[in-house]
Parts: sequence; structure tokens; C-alpha cells
Amino acid sequence: MSTVEKQLDDLKETIASEVPPDISVTEVKYEGPEVVVYTRDPRKFAEDGDLVRNLASKLRKRITIRPDPDVLSAPEKAREEIMAVIPEDAGVTDLDFHEDTGEVVIEAQKPGMVIGRHGSTLREITQESGWTPEVVRTPPIESSTVSNVRDFLKTERDDRRRILEKVGRQIHREEMADDEYVRITTLGCCREVGRASFVLSTPETRILIDCGDKPGSEDEVPYLQVQEALGAGANTIDAVVLTHAHLDHSALIPLLFKYGYDGPIYCTEPTRDLMGLLTLDYLDVASKEGRTPPYESEMVREAIKHCIPLEYGDVTDIAPDVKLTFHNAGHILGSAVSHFHIGDGLYNVAFSGDIHYEDTRLFNGAVNDFPRVETLVMESTYGGRNDYQTDREDSEERLIEVINETFDRGGKVVIPAFAVGRSQELMLVLEEAMREDKIPTVPIHLDGMIWEATAIHTTYPEYLRDDLRDRIFHEDENPFLADQFNHIDGGEEERMDVAEGDECIVLSTSGMVTGGPIMSWLEHAGPDPDNRLVFVGYQAQGTMGRRIQSGWDEIPIGGEGGRTQRLTLNMDVETVDGFSGHADRAGLMNFVKTMNPRPEKVLCVHGDERSVQDLSSGLYHDHNIRTFAPKNLETFRFL
Amino acid sequence: MSTVEKQLDDLKETIASEVPPDISVTEVKYEGPEVVVYTRDPRKFAEDGDLVRNLASKLRKRITIRPDPDVLSAPEKAREEIMAVIPEDAGVTDLDFHEDTGEVVIEAQKPGMVIGRHGSTLREITQESGWTPEVVRTPPIESSTVSNVRDFLKTERDDRRRILEKVGRQIHREEMADDEYVRITTLGCCREVGRASFVLSTPETRILIDCGDKPGSEDEVPYLQVQEALGAGANTIDAVVLTHAHLDHSALIPLLFKYGYDGPIYCTEPTRDLMGLLTLDYLDVASKEGRTPPYESEMVREAIKHCIPLEYGDVTDIAPDVKLTFHNAGHILGSAVSHFHIGDGLYNVAFSGDIHYEDTRLFNGAVNDFPRVETLVMESTYGGRNDYQTDREDSEERLIEVINETFDRGGKVVIPAFAVGRSQELMLVLEEAMREDKIPTVPIHLDGMIWEATAIHTTYPEYLRDDLRDRIFHEDENPFLADQFNHIDGGEEERMDVAEGDECIVLSTSGMVTGGPIMSWLEHAGPDPDNRLVFVGYQAQGTMGRRIQSGWDEIPIGGEGGRTQRLTLNMDVETVDGFSGHADRAGLMNFVKTMNPRPEKVLCVHGDERSVQDLSSGLYHDHNIRTFAPKNLETFRFL
Ligand SMILES: [Zn+2]
Ligand SMILES: [Zn+2]
Ligand SMILES: [Zn+2]
Ligand SMILES: [Zn+2]
Ligand SMILES: [Zn+2]
Repeated sequence: MSTVEKQLDDLKETIASEVPPDISVTEVKYEGPEVVVYTRDPRKFAEDGDLVRNLASKLRKRITIRPDPDVLSAPEKAREEIMAVIPEDAGVTDLDFHEDTGEVVIEAQKPGMVIGRHGSTLREITQESGWTPEVVRTPPIESSTVSNVRDFLKTERDDRRRILEKVGRQIHREEMADDEYVRITTLGCCREVGRASFVLSTPETRILIDCGDKPGSEDEVPYLQVQEALGAGANTIDAVVLTHAHLDHSALIPLLFKYGYDGPIYCTEPTRDLMGLLTLDYLDVASKEGRTPPYESEMVREAIKHCIPLEYGDVTDIAPDVKLTFHNAGHILGSAVSHFHIGDGLYNVAFSGDIHYEDTRLFNGAVNDFPRVETLVMESTYGGRNDYQTDREDSEERLIEVINETFDRGGKVVIPAFAVGRSQELMLVLEEAMREDKIPTVPIHLDGMIWEATAIHTTYPEYLRDDLRDRIFHEDENPFLADQFNHIDGGEEERMDVAEGDECIVLSTSGMVTGGPIMSWLEHAGPDPDNRLVFVGYQAQGTMGRRIQSGWDEIPIGGEGGRTQRLTLNMDVETVDGFSGHADRAGLMNFVKTMNPRPEKVLCVHGDERSVQDLSSGLYHDHNIRTFAPKNLETFRFL
Repeated sequence: MSTVEKQLDDLKETIASEVPPDISVTEVKYEGPEVVVYTRDPRKFAEDGDLVRNLASKLRKRITIRPDPDVLSAPEKAREEIMAVIPEDAGVTDLDFHEDTGEVVIEAQKPGMVIGRHGSTLREITQESGWTPEVVRTPPIESSTVSNVRDFLKTERDDRRRILEKVGRQIHREEMADDEYVRITTLGCCREVGRASFVLSTPETRILIDCGDKPGSEDEVPYLQVQEALGAGANTIDAVVLTHAHLDHSALIPLLFKYGYDGPIYCTEPTRDLMGLLTLDYLDVASKEGRTPPYESEMVREAIKHCIPLEYGDVTDIAPDVKLTFHNAGHILGSAVSHFHIGDGLYNVAFSGDIHYEDTRLFNGAVNDFPRVETLVMESTYGGRNDYQTDREDSEERLIEVINETFDRGGKVVIPAFAVGRSQELMLVLEEAMREDKIPTVPIHLDGMIWEATAIHTTYPEYLRDDLRDRIFHEDENPFLADQFNHIDGGEEERMDVAEGDECIVLSTSGMVTGGPIMSWLEHAGPDPDNRLVFVGYQAQGTMGRRIQSGWDEIPIGGEGGRTQRLTLNMDVETVDGFSGHADRAGLMNFVKTMNPRPEKVLCVHGDERSVQDLSSGLYHDHNIRTFAPKNLETFRFL
């Protein structure tokens, strides 16, 4: 009997002795970080709301109860039983019965009403039907990404259970090492922005954190090939943790599966879906630009299949000696500060990922309160001595001014924006300004991936700022559903109609004018000097956006039949700063200053040479913390 | 055709075009770092002394010429031809013909006379016989280590050629990486003395430098198991470089072969032989102390078989992108400062190994003159702020005083000493003192491995200090052959005779009184208060030597039948400092101060926490060099 079998046997005995004698425990299994308990008495389990909670806290594990398949009602009967329990207002849109596990996935417009107070409705469902309910939200705006991911995971349930069982056994394997150390190896993202990738290693465990590309430098990828990364094979890595879905953190996650990785990816649910959206687009852009994509779309599906979604605050065993907890990072939907607790009180490392320290319209500010943290790996994008951003209120006022000026002269406003994050922030600004009559209520056209990204945001309101979430939940005032938002889904024809029509605002990708529908908008709206092009985000060196900002007014446009035409840009060009998803210098310093507890060491990464050096010396001088500005391919030992 | 085959073909063509048309080139092969050229005209090659030299400098490779087997004289005939050429005074003791390669190994008491001025006699040998001569010295004192190693290498010639050919092909493989970096990973020896082991890595190549044990902490071994070391398999390492034979650098080299390593070990010839002696003794001690040795003696033979001996100053390709050069380190016989030239002028790293900066009686001071060095990895044993040693002249005077006092009262002098280095240094001091009548000429008894270690020293006089070498070479005044030296080879009986006899000096291992024949000497000489125990080397914490130094006079001695008896030590205990093989604080500082060129970065290793920190800050403050005091398991990137 392997040690894992032995452990499971012991676990089964403990559980059996903890539950009342009339509740049977037929099998205990690991599925990923969870312990799954099969019982012939799911109803009795469901009767006592505290039973599972007490069991979980006693075993210090996450526990899921599943009915033994032969005690289940037939799905047709169960459907009636379940629908009778759930209030009609919950808006159930789908019931999906899995007879192999006794689970029923309930898709509803208002998941909270399916769950009930402290899970009372869920328990009632089990008592009536014997089935174990799992609840997901029906996207308020239809999202093809979300439905594709959900459909795909449905068809891959068997393979996914195999993966989860394997992962579970690996997490609960016996600890072998008699040594103690904690190390971080930098595979990218040091003294540069891009190709985020780190290895956190102990004698027992090696965890890869992020695996991104470097925008604008396609050949500079993380140093995955070195021995301490994947040199000895992709499966020498125990787990992958993804802080958020931006491509500089996620683009090469699917590549790991091409290299043979078969382990878990821990991320939040929105990060999983956004990663799917963005990596598929990444492949698309690569092939449009005539580059060979580093992997096929099949690998994106593999990655999604291997995701184990965690919620903020869940303390999760991801290795025999490592617990992971995600906390809101305030940067984009699902972005997470990743906290690793190593050993039994041995050491704690937090990776900030990308953060925004203050509240924005979309998100609460980044969490910087932890039980313990000795070392922080910290983004430094705006860590430079003078990298202060315009105050958000001032920025919004300026944007409103710019829009009103444009409308006053009868022009249209075109805003190049990133699909994920920046666009939704602007949508909230514009929706409020119109509601409060600061600007006239005119159509706001969303082009490129913006609509789809917005749909994903509305699927996961729990990840949005408290009051925004509440508006969506309780008051049914989802601002993203406002009438003036229009999804451009009619192609070039619709764009030309809009361009010839009345005042309006256009948000379109790509955010740095490097391709995508924004090129069409320049073509249609560019010649009219009454129109305005408004940049709201950082334009990187070498991008068309940066060139236009700096005065170029002759720009190449791909014409009919592949010929390149030159377009003369007569429209006004404006830049309104202050909408960044990154903390500025003050935000980064404050994140550490108010951090509880204050870390002993900080590694400054994810910033250009000057930014990491400035932030590193700033933190050292102000707070007397030992700081480092690592290079790529270095290893730091902390214990 | 593989790229190596293609290269060899090109090389053959180049060579054929460079030599006169009447000289045939039948085959060209790699053997380790050398290019071996087979010819049907070995005599013509031998006629022109410059031909091979010019070829070597043109190709920037080490070149060996070998006769095609079918143009050789028969060995019996060749023996006569060869002996007719070599002057009788050369003292040839063996001729060993290898028909497979056309080489004849000539063992002679005076190798210089077999070589002749600028190799003229060697060339004459080839002209007369067609054979390629290789010369080795007949040990002036018979050494079982040297003869065992030589006999073993004879029987393993076939396997050795296989190894060399494989190594040769690997060295000359095509470079694949398009990236550039130079890194050092610390596997041991950081903030501690012992388990020296480092990985030097480039995108192309990974080299292990040293692999030692930690004396007194048998379970603390280098971190070989991590991915960036041997985690992915022992053969992910391209080469092993051994700086010197001390066990804290060499003890676990044979273990690499147990792990499946099949590549080269670069070291000097005396380091190879001393490693054989010391690692076999290491196994012996382990089994005597009831520990399971980490490998079997078979693995020591494997290690010896894989040694590729280099001489000081030889610039040798050891990988497509790495050239290695050894320089005298002044520490023990064959010890080498190891200089790595990476890429074509890209970067240079020197590992000091253990060094002595000033001349000693045995060795010239360490070399610190290099074409280029950007980073130095530096020993720090005596790097502490106050680690100044007594001046060597004062130490010698004090030793002479102590000896004379003892003789004056009719006592004997017993000196625990390390077999390798310290003992030979003392032999030179004592031999001179007797020759100059500073002390009476009495027998000096050598016990334990000291005699054998001395024999190895006399086999390699080229590695000794200039004037000592010259005395051995030119004047036939080998001090180690002085009459008063007596090898204790009669066991306990001889020791008791000596102990009951007249005044004398005993040098015996172990140097820290942790076992070995010194225990018998304490038993026999200890009770007499007229005798003296003189410590001349560092006594580590926890050793019996340290306890005796600090006043213990009741010591446990293994008695008959395994019972432990207690022995009362009445003899005087003295300590005379200043004979260390390590540079002291001043020596370490001076090594860097006078180093040419001055390195940009210094990693201070091989010293306790205080020593490395003190040396690190000393070098920084005095010379404004960027210094580091690494921990084990860290990786530093230099480029
Ligand atoms: Zn980001
Ligand atoms: Zn980022
Ligand atoms: Zn040494
Ligand atoms: Zn040493
Ligand atoms: Zn000295």
C-alpha cells in the first residue's frame, strides 16, 4: 500500500469516527487540494450545516461531500425536486447532472438565491434530491469565452477527474526532505517589464509563478530551459501559479503543456477565462503578423483543463509543504497577490503580481494584510523616483472636458483601449458621467475584444469593487448593461455607419494602435479635424500609438488587396493620463509602508532598470528593508 | 554526417594542407582536449621541431602526432633503438609499448634527459623507432599510490580511450545557444569551511568545480540533488574541475560516478594521485568509524580513469565555450587557482581554491596574474579581521626552540600533522635545521600516510618551489631523501622500540588527533613528562586535538578487545602556529590587492560566517570591489 493509500485509509477512519454513527462513509479520495467524501447518506450530511465545516477545520482540509451514485434520484425526478426548492427569481438557466460524481451544476442568474443564507438552499437541494449542487452564474451579458470554457470542461470531465486525482495524490505525498530552505529563481521580468516567471523552491517542492511573454520582444521569453526551471522536464515542476491573465504573465502558460507539463495551474476563475481569451488572441495576432506561434490552440485548452480555480482568501494546500492563498490585487479582474506559506510556520513569501494600491472604480485596492510575510516579490512598473500619476478624479474631469469640447464642435471621440481592465474602467466613468449629465448621453461603441471582456467581468461580480458588486447583485443596476453601450458586431459596414453618424464615443482595441479594429476607426474618423483621438494608457516605445502621440500624422493603413496606403490624420490627438491599472510610485511605496506585517526583504521586479533601482533604494531608505533588484537567472535563498 | 565528423574532416584537410606534401595524414581524432593526428610518416613529422608547434598555434588546439600502427618497428626492435638514443644517466626503469596507438611510455629517473633540449631526444626516438614517446618520472621514493594509478591506467587503456574520444567530441560539439550569460551556483562552502562545490554555467555548458565533504559534519554534503546541480542526472554536467586533493574539495568526486557521471575530471597530475590516496583513506576511516561510506573504492578508480591531467599554464578547451587554465595556488601539491575563459573574450572567472599567497618552503606563492578576470571566487579561511598568523621565520625559530628544550631534558617530540602538505613543510624545516646544526641530527619518524604522501611529492618536483625543484633536479640534493627520515612500517612493535629509544622526532597522522597512529604515539610517549606534544596546525572544534590543547589530560584510548581505556597525558603540550597552508588575512588581502588585473567582483567563500563577512567588507572598503558573501544554494549571474 502506497503512503497515499495509507493516508487515505487513516483519513477515512478519522472521518467515520467524527460523523454520527448513522452516516456512512463509503470512500474518501483526493481531488486536487480537496478531500472528497462519498456517502450513502448525503441527506443526513446536509441536515447538519456545521458537520462539514467542523470536519474541515478538524482535518485542516477542504472537504466536499458526494453521494454514492446508487442513492441518487434519477435526473428527471431530481430536476423536479431541485426546481421546487429554488426560488423562481433565482433565474435558473441550466441544470447539468453528472451521474459519475452525483454532482449537479446549476447555472443561475442569481447564484446567491440558489445558495441561500449560509448555504441553506444548497443543503435543502441535497436533502430533497441526494445530489450535490454546484452553482455558477449565468453571464448577464452572454460571453462566448465563459460558455466555451464551461462546455469544454463538461466534455472533459473524465480527464479532469484523472488530473485532479493525480494532483491530489501529489499534494498529499509524504515529505521526503530532511533539509530546510526557501529559494526564488528569476526566469524573467527582472530589470524589464515582461516575461514574468519565477520558481519558488523548497527541498520538497518547485512551483512556477507566471509564465509570460515580453510585449514587443517576441523572442525574449522566460528562461524555461535552464535546469532549475524545466531543463529536467516540465514535470519536475509541482505546480504553476498564475497571478493574473495579462499576457506578460500568462502568454506562455499553454507552452508548458506542449513541453509535457501535466500538473495544476492555480488561478482565480476569472483569470482562467481571461487567460483563455487572451492567449487565443495572442495566437491569432502571431499568425496574422506572420510569426510562428509557439503553441497551438489545443494547448490553451489543455491549460484550461488543468486550472484549479481558487477564491480570494482560500488557504489551499498545493504541495506537502506549501499553502497558497490569493488576495485581491486591484489590477485587473481576478488578479491576485499570491501568498505562499511554507512548511509549518517556516517561511512566507508573497508575490505581488501586478497591483493597484488604491481603489479604482472597478476594484478594491490591493490587499496588503497577511498573517505573516518575510519576503515580498514586488512589481515596480512605476517605481521610478518621478513616476507619479495624475490623480484619478482630475483625470476623469479632464476626460469629460475633452469629450464635451469634441461634442461641442460636432466631433466624435475615439479611444484606443486595452480590452481587459482599462475599457471597463472607462465604461464606468462614461456611464456615470452620462447618468449625472456631465456629458450628453450618446452611444458608446465597443469594438474588438472589449465587449467579450466586459461580459466576463459581469460573470464574476464578486471580483469587482464592493459597491459595484452590490449594484450588480442587490439593486440590479449593472452599469455595464446601460443602453448606450453598443457592441460593434456588424463589421466594417457598422463602423462606417457610425463614422458617418452623430456624436458618439468609440472604445476600440488595440490599446497601443498596433493593429485590430482601431486601425479602421483611424481610417474612418481620422480625416475629420473635428474628431478626437484620446489616449488613456501608456504607449510603449515603438508602437504606432507612441508615434501618433509624438506627432506623426501620416500613418500606413493596410489597404485593399494587401497594398499599404498612407492615411493623413487630421483629427485632434489628446492624452489623458491617470487610468493605469498599476500603482504609481506613491502607491507602491504605500503598499509596503502600510503592509501588515512589514516584510524583511523585498525583491523589486517588473520594472525597467531605473524603476527597480529607484524603488529598491526608496524602500531601503524609507523603511530600512533589505531590498534587491535581481537580474534574470539568479537564485536567492531566504532560509 | 554529424557536425563533429564534419569538423574533423575539415580539420584533416587543413592539417594535410599545412604539412609538407610528402607527409601523410591518415586520420584525425579528438581525444579529450587534444587533436590526435595519425600519420604514416612519423619520422618526417619528428624531423621538423617547429611543424607541430606551428600547427598547434595555427589551429589553436593541442596536437599529438601518432604513427599509423603498420609503420612501427616491432617493440623488441624499438626497445633497442630507443635505448640507444637515451643517455644512460636518464635512468630508464620501464618501457611500455602500446601498439594500438603507437605510443611508448618511458619511465625514467631523470625525465629531462629523455626529453632533451626543446624535445630533441624525444624527436630522435621517433625518428629511430617510429613510436611516439611519452615520459613519466620514476618516483625517487617508491610510491604505491603512483604505481597503482599508473598500473591501473595501463590496464584500462581501452576504456580510457573511449572516454577521451567521447569527451573530445563533446568539447568540440557545435555551439547551440544564441544567448549569453555566465552564472555561478553555490552548492556548498558558503559561510562555512567544507563541502566545496560550485556550478559554473553558461547557456552552453555546466561545469562542476570541486565536490568535497565537510570534516566533522559527515551528513552535510554539497547540494548535488538540486536541479541546477545533478538533479536532472549526473551527465547534465559537462565537466568537473578539481582545484586540489584535500577532502573538503575532493571527497565526493567519486560519488559522481556512482550517480552515473561519465565525463572528465580536470586536475593536475599530483591532484589526481593525491585524490586517489585521500579518498581511499576517507573510505577506510568511514568504515572504521562504523559509518556507511557513500561509495565504494571501485568509484575512486572510476574517478581516476576519468581524470584529464593538465599542467599549470596549459590553456585547454574543456567545452565549446570554455577554456580552463590552472595556475599554482601555493597551498598543497598540485593545488590550482582555476581560471575560466568563457566565450570568445566574453567573460573570465577565477576560482582561487585554497591558496597561500607567500612562498613557503614547499611552494611558490599563489599566482594572481591573469590575462583577464572579471569575477574571483575566493577562499576566506583566515579572512577574519584579526586572522593574522605568526611570521613563518618566527614560527620556525620557535619550533627549533621547543625541540631543543625537549632534547635538552632527554625527551622526544611528537607532532600530529596532516599527511599532505604540512608534514612535508615540516620535513624541510627539520632537515635544514639539522643540516645547519640548529638542532641535533636525530631520527625523524614518519607515521601514517606521511611517507606515502612524501613519495608523491618527490614524484612531481615540477610542482614544488623553484629552488626546491632545482635541488631535486640539478643537484641531486633531494631533502626528502635525507638519512634521518624513517618510515614507520614495522607497526606497533617499531613504535614501542622508538618510544623506548633515544631522542627523536615523530610526525604522525591524524593531524587533529581524531584517530590513526598518533593515538599509539600518545599511548607510548604520553606518560613521560619529558616528552612533548607539539601542535603545528589548526585544531577544529570538537576534535581531540582541540581538547588536549585546551587542557584535557585524560584521554580515551581504544584498548585490547575493544575496551576503552583512559590514558593520563603527562607530556608537555605546545602549540606553534604559522605553518598553515592557507593565506592569512594579510595574504588574502594582498592576493587581491596585487592581482593583475583587479577583479570587478569577488565572491567570498570557504570561511565561517565572520570570516567571509570580514573579508568581503575589507575588500570592499580597501579596494572598492563589489563583494558578496553568498549562501549555499544561491545563483549569481555576471553577464
Ligand atoms: Zn498586468
Ligand atoms: Zn505585468
Ligand atoms: Zn585545501
Ligand atoms: Zn579547503
Ligand atoms: Zn602566510
